[in-house]
Amino acid sequence: MSATKKQIVILGGGFAGVYAARCLEKMLRPEEADICLVNRENYWVYQPMLPEVISGSIGLTDVVAPIRRLCPRTHLVMREVEDVDLKNRVVTVSPGFRPRQKKIPYDYLVIALGEVTNFYGMPGMLENAMPFRTLADAIALRNHLIHVLEEADVEEDADLRRKLLTFVVGGGGFSGVEVLAELNNFVRDVKRSYLRLRDEQIRCVLVHSRDRILQEMAEPLALFAQKILKKRGVEMILKDRLVAATSEKAILKSGLEIPCKTIISTVPSGPIPVLAKLECEKDKDSLLVTTGLELVGYEGQVWALGDCASIKTASGKPVPPTAQHATREATTCALNIAAAIHGGQPALFTFEGLGTLGSLGHGSAVAQIFGMKISGLVAWLLWRAIYLMKIPGIKSKFRISMDWFIHLLFPPDLAQTRLEQESGIKNQHFEPGDIIFHQGDLGDSVYVIEKGECDVIKEDQGASRVLATLRAGDYFGEMALLADKTRNATIQARTAMEILLIPKRDFDTLRKSVPAFGEVFHELARKRAPAHAAAPVDAPPPAAPN
Amino acid sequence: MSATKKQIVILGGGFAGVYAARCLEKMLRPEEADICLVNRENYWVYQPMLPEVISGSIGLTDVVAPIRRLCPRTHLVMREVEDVDLKNRVVTVSPGFRPRQKKIPYDYLVIALGEVTNFYGMPGMLENAMPFRTLADAIALRNHLIHVLEEADVEEDADLRRKLLTFVVGGGGFSGVEVLAELNNFVRDVKRSYLRLRDEQIRCVLVHSRDRILQEMAEPLALFAQKILKKRGVEMILKDRLVAATSEKAILKSGLEIPCKTIISTVPSGPIPVLAKLECEKDKDSLLVTTGLELVGYEGQVWALGDCASIKTASGKPVPPTAQHATREATTCALNIAAAIHGGQPALFTFEGLGTLGSLGHGSAVAQIFGMKISGLVAWLLWRAIYLMKIPGIKSKFRISMDWFIHLLFPPDLAQTRLEQESGIKNQHFEPGDIIFHQGDLGDSVYVIEKGECDVIKEDQGASRVLATLRAGDYFGEMALLADKTRNATIQARTAMEILLIPKRDFDTLRKSVPAFGEVFHELARKRAPAHAAAPVDAPPPAAPN
Repeated sequence: MSATKKQIVILGGGFAGVYAARCLEKMLRPEEADICLVNRENYWVYQPMLPEVISGSIGLTDVVAPIRRLCPRTHLVMREVEDVDLKNRVVTVSPGFRPRQKKIPYDYLVIALGEVTNFYGMPGMLENAMPFRTLADAIALRNHLIHVLEEADVEEDADLRRKLLTFVVGGGGFSGVEVLAELNNFVRDVKRSYLRLRDEQIRCVLVHSRDRILQEMAEPLALFAQKILKKRGVEMILKDRLVAATSEKAILKSGLEIPCKTIISTVPSGPIPVLAKLECEKDKDSLLVTTGLELVGYEGQVWALGDCASIKTASGKPVPPTAQHATREATTCALNIAAAIHGGQPALFTFEGLGTLGSLGHGSAVAQIFGMKISGLVAWLLWRAIYLMKIPGIKSKFRISMDWFIHLLFPPDLAQTRLEQESGIKNQHFEPGDIIFHQGDLGDSVYVIEKGECDVIKEDQGASRVLATLRAGDYFGEMALLADKTRNATIQARTAMEILLIPKRDFDTLRKSVPAFGEVFHELARKRAPAHAAAPVDAPPPAAPN
Repeated sequence: MSATKKQIVILGGGFAGVYAARCLEKMLRPEEADICLVNRENYWVYQPMLPEVISGSIGLTDVVAPIRRLCPRTHLVMREVEDVDLKNRVVTVSPGFRPRQKKIPYDYLVIALGEVTNFYGMPGMLENAMPFRTLADAIALRNHLIHVLEEADVEEDADLRRKLLTFVVGGGGFSGVEVLAELNNFVRDVKRSYLRLRDEQIRCVLVHSRDRILQEMAEPLALFAQKILKKRGVEMILKDRLVAATSEKAILKSGLEIPCKTIISTVPSGPIPVLAKLECEKDKDSLLVTTGLELVGYEGQVWALGDCASIKTASGKPVPPTAQHATREATTCALNIAAAIHGGQPALFTFEGLGTLGSLGHGSAVAQIFGMKISGLVAWLLWRAIYLMKIPGIKSKFRISMDWFIHLLFPPDLAQTRLEQESGIKNQHFEPGDIIFHQGDLGDSVYVIEKGECDVIKEDQGASRVLATLRAGDYFGEMALLADKTRNATIQARTAMEILLIPKRDFDTLRKSVPAFGEVFHELARKRAPAHAAAPVDAPPPAAPN
């Protein structure tokens, strides 16, 4: 019997992947097939409720469910997918504790890996904009919000305080609007716990490329949502979009700059790298499938579901990337795999959608169901009822109901759950005119210029003069670290720049252990110091900008 | 009025610090004093319940409370304390978003910074043993446990699987015993969700230096606890202690080695660095205080409370570092600061303790209260009742009761909440004979030897020969990274070694941006490659072990 036992491998643990595994567990007997699911996390995220993690109205782990509990018969492999070999029917996953890759052969493959955030061509976004897809993203955002509030309460510089209290969200689809609404509610609710912030201005800005938000819904509902958000103090910038970012500001296509320390981007998406290199037919970057959800060219062997696939219903309508569609795709796919094993006709995907729902928090939502348009408290109650009903498992239903009940009675939680922050070597983007560091700052990093130019400026009794200009390949900032002093020159970008930051801790470790590395900077420090006996330990001698 | 307004600064947000702020808020009018509390986290941890976070029987944030809510009139500064200047009455805290330190002057200072884990003289412990003090520690441990269970379920190597399922806890005091009991309950409870682990052996080992655990309690109670733990499958190693660790094993004083991937140490403690450099009278490393809890030499200005202070009661008995004592110290301290402002006699610390309680989870505990010894279910119910009563705030009481109720009905949660793991440059310790990497492994790091020696071993058709020996200052592992191949030699430690690991990502970034750094390794690779055209890309030519 085990000779004919089929190996089914599912890639991805989102709605599509997990529901496919659940359906297959029901449709196939254990002796017919082994089901294996590969996902980088061991939990499935109930995506519609993820924004509620920001305010803590749902507990951090109540919005997720362990995949092992949802699919008890499925073998979970908590690793990254590194390669899919369609010809030889083998999936390769990343190493675990042993530095060896693991190969998983399959008879039937389900690809449901979703998409990734892709900031290609948007300088500084990768370093400074926070995505919002996973539980880790939501927790990181929550911790970041608490961090900026804490700092704003302590900070004495009024400009910096305004930046700390400005929050920019890019993308006015469901995801962007729900994140912004939760964020806005949260920061305004907790402000009263911060003694010095009581009179400070909080700015929450939504940037959207179209002339109204919530393109997925009818116009009256979108306008209702805009009105509610405006009433709650949200600024909306329409027909514009994020194009670049630095650690100090968001930059829009129109040229508008918003000084801020928090940028969240819910767009744009791109194909995940392992699928980008897959050789098969595609529609733009998405995997092209038949109406039976089979990968074109690999019918009867490989299925693709969810956001990574380009799907049309039997009637020819393109399928949007929502949870309700993904779960139905999972059912169709499972039916077709069962048909491939048992024999029979494959099913076609015909689900046309039931409607759309978006929450604005604080007792308000917009809904468009079976052609009806509903807004306000009724829509919000509907939103809660539907999503609570849909979440699998009694434990989750119970916990979330409790969370909501407690959230009604008590103010939102404020505890930051960050783990130890290891700051490593990282890149940063600067725009022309940006100050990279100020004379008098503590020296916390060494800088290597990868692209662009900057001026070394000495400030002395109110006057300032440019000592030198540094270019790609130049290093700076070493002297404050080598001498353990504060910066004694200001560095300002002349052009857009890409810079590598080596934090003090790594710099000290490397120069001790790899003497040639340290020598580069010691040499530089020796060259720079004598030319300006008076000071500029962080500046090169004007004559030798290398 | 503001001319006479006093500045009170409290360092540390544990039991002592937070309760001192709460008492001061009650005893002093807002116009009499500003209270400022400095803590690296914005929450206070309810330490006695922290072990329950491991199993998730209490939600991740339910065991903490925001300090701003506990002390609404206190200014919270969420920074690290970097310096205390007792002469000039100024505290310096770490920079926030701006790289400038912040100075906080004070009239009255309360030092309640606790202790830190100190692994000085215990090779490899810093890199491989996990502490258990903060919420971050508890979350990190929980995520680590889930990670090793997930890997054990997938791993094919039986030796590695056994290591992944072995858990070692050092220290048999309250903290160690409670952590071990929770950990043991958790891994055994969730094992059934792992399809391949059902028949695998789980080993939980408690290592303690004395002849019985729970020195803080009477012998019959300790023996009861030992019996319960043994019945639940815990191994106990008494009269021995952890002295070193590698990524593969725990090493005990007796020479015993326990192969494992999880080591938790609840001992030893040391002074926090900023207090170690403080110039004042000390008892060993602790701050010496009067019976009024004033720092000796700074009476009427500075108080020291909690674990960082050496305290004796008015009757001359040394005060143990427990929550019940810390809260009473806070009251005495607040009374004395109020007396310093209003005038009056300082109070003396006379609290002698009410008893001790320790939970073993799963309906069992040990308690010694008002001279009575209680164990089992009654002690456990007492434990829960007392600690629930003592936790401040209705919201916390409510949430924790709910958590406990849900935990009774449903199996423990399994979702891992790790954030993106940035793996940076780090140190690692190896013992003689340890394999640093195997021929055939994926190349994920470059290694720099800081101390010790290792052999480069070529394995060929079952035979193996030593090609070279590497020493402090040598580098290895660069060729697999430069050529993007697997390791083609095995590296084995000859002596105890300290090695710096530079992960592939950082290595690639650095050699691109700092050419002199890359040149070191390219040069080495060129030297090593031609001498052995056949292979050893990760080994040096035998003639040139540099």
